[in-house]
Amino acid sequence: MYYDELELRSDDERESQIKRDLPKLLAMAQKKVPAYARLLDGLEPGDIKSRSDLRYLPLLRKSEFGKAQSHKPPLGGLSVGKVADFDYVFQSPGPLYEVGSLKRDWWRIGRFLFGCGIGSRDIVQNCFSYHLTPAGHMFENGARAVGATVFPAGTGNTDLQVRAAADIGTTVYAGTPDYLKTILERAKELNVRLDRINKAAVSAGPLFTSLREWYHERLILCTQNYATAEAGNIAYETIPYQGMIVDEGVLVEIVTPGTAEPVDDGVIGEVVVTVFNDDYPLIRMATGDLSSILPGPSECGRTNMRISGWRGRADQTTKVKGLFVHPSQIAEFVSRHRRMTKARAIVTRAEESDVLTVKVEAEAVEEDHLQELLHSIINLRARIELVPPGSLPNDGKVIDDQRELQ
Amino acid sequence: MYYDELELRSDDERESQIKRDLPKLLAMAQKKVPAYARLLDGLEPGDIKSRSDLRYLPLLRKSEFGKAQSHKPPLGGLSVGKVADFDYVFQSPGPLYEVGSLKRDWWRIGRFLFGCGIGSRDIVQNCFSYHLTPAGHMFENGARAVGATVFPAGTGNTDLQVRAAADIGTTVYAGTPDYLKTILERAKELNVRLDRINKAAVSAGPLFTSLREWYHERLILCTQNYATAEAGNIAYETIPYQGMIVDEGVLVEIVTPGTAEPVDDGVIGEVVVTVFNDDYPLIRMATGDLSSILPGPSECGRTNMRISGWRGRADQTTKVKGLFVHPSQIAEFVSRHRRMTKARAIVTRAEESDVLTVKVEAEAVEEDHLQELLHSIINLRARIELVPPGSLPNDGKVIDDQRELQ
Repeated sequence: MYYDELELRSDDERESQIKRDLPKLLAMAQKKVPAYARLLDGLEPGDIKSRSDLRYLPLLRKSEFGKAQSHKPPLGGLSVGKVADFDYVFQSPGPLYEVGSLKRDWWRIGRFLFGCGIGSRDIVQNCFSYHLTPAGHMFENGARAVGATVFPAGTGNTDLQVRAAADIGTTVYAGTPDYLKTILERAKELNVRLDRINKAAVSAGPLFTSLREWYHERLILCTQNYATAEAGNIAYETIPYQGMIVDEGVLVEIVTPGTAEPVDDGVIGEVVVTVFNDDYPLIRMATGDLSSILPGPSECGRTNMRISGWRGRADQTTKVKGLFVHPSQIAEFVSRHRRMTKARAIVTRAEESDVLTVKVEAEAVEEDHLQELLHSIINLRARIELVPPGSLPNDGKVIDDQRELQ
Repeated sequence: MYYDELELRSDDERESQIKRDLPKLLAMAQKKVPAYARLLDGLEPGDIKSRSDLRYLPLLRKSEFGKAQSHKPPLGGLSVGKVADFDYVFQSPGPLYEVGSLKRDWWRIGRFLFGCGIGSRDIVQNCFSYHLTPAGHMFENGARAVGATVFPAGTGNTDLQVRAAADIGTTVYAGTPDYLKTILERAKELNVRLDRINKAAVSAGPLFTSLREWYHERLILCTQNYATAEAGNIAYETIPYQGMIVDEGVLVEIVTPGTAEPVDDGVIGEVVVTVFNDDYPLIRMATGDLSSILPGPSECGRTNMRISGWRGRADQTTKVKGLFVHPSQIAEFVSRHRRMTKARAIVTRAEESDVLTVKVEAEAVEEDHLQELLHSIINLRARIELVPPGSLPNDGKVIDDQRELQ
C-alpha cells in the first residue's frame, strides 16, 4: 500500500523527473520570487538537472530568512506573491513568518500519515498547537488528505484531552513525541481506558528509542517524520523502521556545516532541502539540522533516498518541547533586564520530557519576574537558576543541549 | 453589498421557502438522526410549514445534549452519521461534543464576516482558540468563505500577537470582545503601531457599549454576532447597528424560559433555534440564552427578522472570557476536595475584562491547590477566596453574574 506511484519509481524514473522539473522550479523561482531573483541572478536554469548539480547554487540559510523578513516584513520576498494571496500566514519563534495553503496535502504530511497506516476510518487527536505556529494546520491538512477526522486538541488541558480521547474514540495521536505519554499516564491515574489509540504520528522533536519502546509495549505504533515550517514534510519513517525516506517533493543534500559542500553518504552534516512547491519554492535551504544519508532503499518498498533522522542542530539553536530556542533569544532575554549579565540555557530530559533550565548571572532579581520575561520571549516555561556573577563558563555556549539522542 | 440574495427576500419569499424546506428538514431529521427519530415520533412533517407552526414540536434543551452524549458518546445520536463521517469533532466545556465540516461556510460565519466588510484583501488575526473548542475553526471557515487570509493566533502570548499584527499587517481582529483591547494596550506599551487593524469581528461573550465605543474611537469598526458551537451563526450585527439580523439558515423563536411557548415581540425570553443543516440539523434547540425579537427590518436593507442580542442566560450557566461555566462544574469542583463544603462563582468586570472570583467555604486548604483543581475543570483561572463555613448565602445561587449588560 503506497500513497502514490511516485514512491515506487526506479532511480532512473526519479532522476528523469528531476531533470525535467528542477530547471522549471529554478526558472519559476527566478521569475516570481524576489529573493531568488537576486540569489540566482545570472543562473541558466537548464544547467542544473540533478541533485548533484545543486552544489553549484548558493545556500539560503534559515537564519537569512529572519534577516530578509525583518528587512521586508512579513515574508522577506521569499514567496510567490504577498500574504493576502495565501490562505494562511503563521508566526514561528524568531519571529519567522511562513505561509500556508488549503490545497490538497500542501505540506505533504499526508504522505507521512498514510505511511503510518492512517486512513478515513481514523480519528486523529491533533495535539500540535494551532496558535501562531503552523504545526497544527500542517498535520490537519495531512489528515484531511488521507480522509481522517480531526479532533483539534492542541497542547495542555490534559484532563480534558483524556476525557475527549475516551468519549470520541480517538484512534491516532498526532503531536510531539512526549505528550502522548503524559496523556496515557494521566488516563491511568484517572482510571480511564484509552485502548482505541493504536497509532502515534510524532514530530517536532527527537523521538527517543526508549520512548518508542514504551509506546510499542502499549500496542501503539509510533512513527515519526522530519518536517519544518517552511519546507513541510522532508522525510518520514515507514514500517519497518529503517531510517527516514525522503519526501517525493523534496531533494535532500547533506553538507559540511558552515559550507555548501556535500559530504559522503553516512557522514553526519547539515540538511539542505530543495522543495518543489509552486507557491513557496525552496532552493538549497540550509535547515540547521544535522542528519546523514543512509545507503540503499528501505525494505518497505519505497525506493527514494533515506536519511538517518535528526541528529541535533548545526548551530546551538535547539528545540525544546517542540519549539525552537535560538541563542539570539537568550541574548535578548539578558538584554531586557539591567541586573542580568549572562545566561546559559541547559536542556535535559526527565521522565521522558524536555526540561529547560536557564542559569542566570544576576543579583537582587526575582526569579518569578525573570521566568515571566523569558516566557514572553521564548513562549516556554523554564526553571530559572540564579548563579553568582562570573560563575558561568566562558566557552561561548549559550544553549547547552545535554539530551542524548537515541 | 450583500452576501447573497437570500438576505433581500421579501417576507413572502422567505415564508414560501420555509414552507418548502421545513417539512424536508423534519423528514430528514426523523429518518437520519436517531435523537429526532425518537423526539419527533409520529409527527407528520408536512404539518409544520412555518416558524409559528414550530410551537407544536418539543424543545431540545442544550442540557439534554450533555445527557444524550454521556449516554451514547460522543454524539448522542444527534447528528447524521458517526464521528468518522465528519471532517472535525470538537469538545466544549461540559464536556459537550460537536462536529464540523470543511464545506463552504458550513457554520455560516462567512455571512457575518461579509456584513462586517471583510473580504479577500483582508488578513484576519483569528484570536479564537483552536484547541478543543470549535470557535477557531468556525471563524476560519467563515474567513475562507469571504476569501480572507487567516493568521491562526489563538489566545494568549500577547507580546507575540502584537509583533505579528505589526509585521504581517493584520487588518481584522476576530476573537472575544475584550482581547483586542489587551492587544492594543500592550502595543502602546511596546510602542508598536497597529494602525492597519480597522475591523473587529467579535463573539462568544457580551460586547459592552463602552468597549465598542473605545474601539470606534480608535477607528476600529467593531461588530458582533451570536453563534453557538452546535448551531453556528444564529444572528449578526450589520452597519448601522440596529440589533442582530437572524441568519438565513436559521429560524429563531423566543420562548418563556422553562416552557416551549413563544413570547410576544419585544419580550425577553429564551432563544430557540431551528437550523437548516443537512449534516447536523437542529430542531427547536433551546440555547439557554436570553434575547427578544425586535419589530421591523434593519435599515441596512437585509429583510430578515431581528433580535436584540444576548441578554444573559436563562439558567445560571454563564460565559466568562468566552467559555461557558456551568453550575454543574462548580458542583464538581466542590465534590473533588473533602474540605470544601460550598462554593459560589462571582463574575464581575474590571478594566473591560471578565473577572471570575470563587468564594469557597473551606478550612485548612491551599488556595493555589484549589485554583489548579478548578482550572482542570473549567479551563479558566479564577481568584479563590476562602470564607468561613456557613457564611455564603443560602439562596440556591451557584453562579452569580454581576456584570451589567449594555
